[in-house]
Amino acid sequence: MTTAHHEDRLHAQIAFILEIDKLKRVLRRNLLMDGSRRENDAEHSWYLAMLALVLAEHAEPGVDLGRVVRMLLVHDIVEIDAGDTFIYDVVAVEAQAAAEIAAAERLFGLLPEEQAREFRALWEEFEARETPEARFAKALDRLAPMMANHHNEGGTWALYRVTARQVLEKVALITDGSPRLGAFATDLVETSVARGHLQP
Amino acid sequence: MTTAHHEDRLHAQIAFILEIDKLKRVLRRNLLMDGSRRENDAEHSWYLAMLALVLAEHAEPGVDLGRVVRMLLVHDIVEIDAGDTFIYDVVAVEAQAAAEIAAAERLFGLLPEEQAREFRALWEEFEARETPEARFAKALDRLAPMMANHHNEGGTWALYRVTARQVLEKVALITDGSPRLGAFATDLVETSVARGHLQP
Ligand SMILES: [Ca+2]
Repeated sequence: MTTAHHEDRLHAQIAFILEIDKLKRVLRRNLLMDGSRRENDAEHSWYLAMLALVLAEHAEPGVDLGRVVRMLLVHDIVEIDAGDTFIYDVVAVEAQAAAEIAAAERLFGLLPEEQAREFRALWEEFEARETPEARFAKALDRLAPMMANHHNEGGTWALYRVTARQVLEKVALITDGSPRLGAFATDLVETSVARGHLQP
Repeated sequence: MTTAHHEDRLHAQIAFILEIDKLKRVLRRNLLMDGSRRENDAEHSWYLAMLALVLAEHAEPGVDLGRVVRMLLVHDIVEIDAGDTFIYDVVAVEAQAAAEIAAAERLFGLLPEEQAREFRALWEEFEARETPEARFAKALDRLAPMMANHHNEGGTWALYRVTARQVLEKVALITDGSPRLGAFATDLVETSVARGHLQP
């Protein structure tokens, strides 16, 4: 490998790094735990990666934790172009798919070719939810906003009139990645209903 | 292991997870790449973890990338209690050490014991900068704000009257973790001086 080749790789990598700074400005619907403001995708991604490290023992035995973490770090990058979709908005969720594929093409395409493939594969694995790693990663992605709503007297549940029934459909995805975390999430939902912070 | 034991572990882990949400509200001195606002520690930690994935090939051969990523994810958690210190403020940097040790004790101490030890060891390894993993992690921590300042017409360099000479001391830490990234950072500093965005 020549020096020029290495320089080209570094320039491509820096272009990608500069671009993904924008993830810090993509706002999600849910609030921080203290309710002070909406969360952005970059800090959300950090938070999920930390959840993976802390809650690793609740994943299926043999899960590759490093891949879970890498998946969570990249899982929302496509939202720089495609924007955040509220998971309870079914129409938006479907229209979103095409926009996210184009975003993956453009954003990961800034990287040297084999890195573009590697990052895109992580994102696709997360979305497909077919591996134990992806199911655990997705479980954490569903759990975090539930915890925030639970600590914000219903938070975005109340605001967008989401019902316990709808939330329990998302809890099923948590159970799928981790039965123990699924049971924990079910408790959160039941407590929120009992407190009047979530419609039954 | 009994179910009660597992429940206790999960409760300790959730207490930690709720607490570290506060990292999203610890503000750093540097701005986002677009200059729109100050960066917070949580999104900064995500960004550094991404830099580690993208720039891995510029680390010393044989570096354990998974440990670099875990180190970067936890490296600023102590700032929830101890606050961010501006790296060019020498007096503050020294007073900070004791506050950070107390913070590590309290924050990581929320976790089950062996996890508390594991996370604390990652933070200590980062701070000691003795392993190739820690040197690479620290290099990225120094590189990211330089890139932001370079893209913000001097950003916090101008604001806090930092000179090229002071910045080049930090560049030495980058070179120590990655000669190639050190050369790249030196170029950034020289360009910033040439453009009049950094005092020589
Ligand atoms: Ca710091």
